[in-house]
Amino acid sequence: MTRWEPGARNRLEQAALELFVERGFEQATVSEITARAGLTERTFFRHFTDKREVLFSGQDELQAFLVDTVIQAPASLAPLDAIAKGLQHVAGAVFDSRRAHAQQRKAVIDTVEGLRERELLKLAALSGAIVGALRSRGVAEPTASLTAETGIIVFKIAFERWLDPTNNRDLAELIPETLEQLKIVTSSL
Amino acid sequence: MTRWEPGARNRLEQAALELFVERGFEQATVSEITARAGLTERTFFRHFTDKREVLFSGQDELQAFLVDTVIQAPASLAPLDAIAKGLQHVAGAVFDSRRAHAQQRKAVIDTVEGLRERELLKLAALSGAIVGALRSRGVAEPTASLTAETGIIVFKIAFERWLDPTNNRDLAELIPETLEQLKIVTSSL
Repeated sequence: MTRWEPGARNRLEQAALELFVERGFEQATVSEITARAGLTERTFFRHFTDKREVLFSGQDELQAFLVDTVIQAPASLAPLDAIAKGLQHVAGAVFDSRRAHAQQRKAVIDTVEGLRERELLKLAALSGAIVGALRSRGVAEPTASLTAETGIIVFKIAFERWLDPTNNRDLAELIPETLEQLKIVTSSL
Repeated sequence: MTRWEPGARNRLEQAALELFVERGFEQATVSEITARAGLTERTFFRHFTDKREVLFSGQDELQAFLVDTVIQAPASLAPLDAIAKGLQHVAGAVFDSRRAHAQQRKAVIDTVEGLRERELLKLAALSGAIVGALRSRGVAEPTASLTAETGIIVFKIAFERWLDPTNNRDLAELIPETLEQLKIVTSSL
């Protein structure tokens, strides 16, 4: 029987991020992470396949949520609006209370090329999953791909603005504003 | 003194791609590539750092061309239009005569995760270079990033449509059409 460790996942994430910032991603070991979290390596490997995955574990939930949002959106809502509403909801419910965490995570990822590549692959997978959800709603190509990729770009750029040290506004506010700016950019066409 | 090998770069690219398709990217060696091209390994390493780079060598020229296009575009042209015109020019001048080559290249990249990651990093670098060119023209953020990323997406999606086995239209034709569809997608906002 495995022991139930309340909040184990969060404690491991927090300990890992602290160690990546203090000692560098390459140098920090799983055994140091578990020691700091007061948990065993066995518990670590029940939650994550390796130390890299600690940085990306939230993306699967984000993907599942956005796919659901697109599938369940009312037919009257344009596809890009459905994605935008989903992103805005996640921003308020998940991200806006964790800005310091997201900034530390970005600082770690920016220093390691392998982590930057992983981040790009995860965003590409997220886009692919949204394309699948749009197609299941009858959106044809290339509209499905254009809509999904455009949604991801708005998220990515709003996220970068949110993490900027000089910014003091919420992500939930920056997402609709970035969409508005995209509209201006494409209106020249 | 090094020997001048006319067309060495192209012969190496062609030989490498053939071998990657026949034997798989991981299995094919630099020595097999040079043997097939009738050239020495020394010549190979004058042109490429490793066999992976053979697949990505064209992207540096593409990037230089697009950056120039954005910098030299008349001030009256909207930034996204400048990028679109640059992409359309490259499509007609470089890509449309090499579709079979581009299809083989894609087939190789799709089979190796490390190559897919490399492709995404190269596209991200391309986007970053265009952002730099736009900023030098006085385009502010987040407009510069939104414009560059939107241009890359249009290129990526038009490229995928062009490579589709059922497609028989030119890339130079698919780029403005994809831009037109992007306009429809964002007009719902």
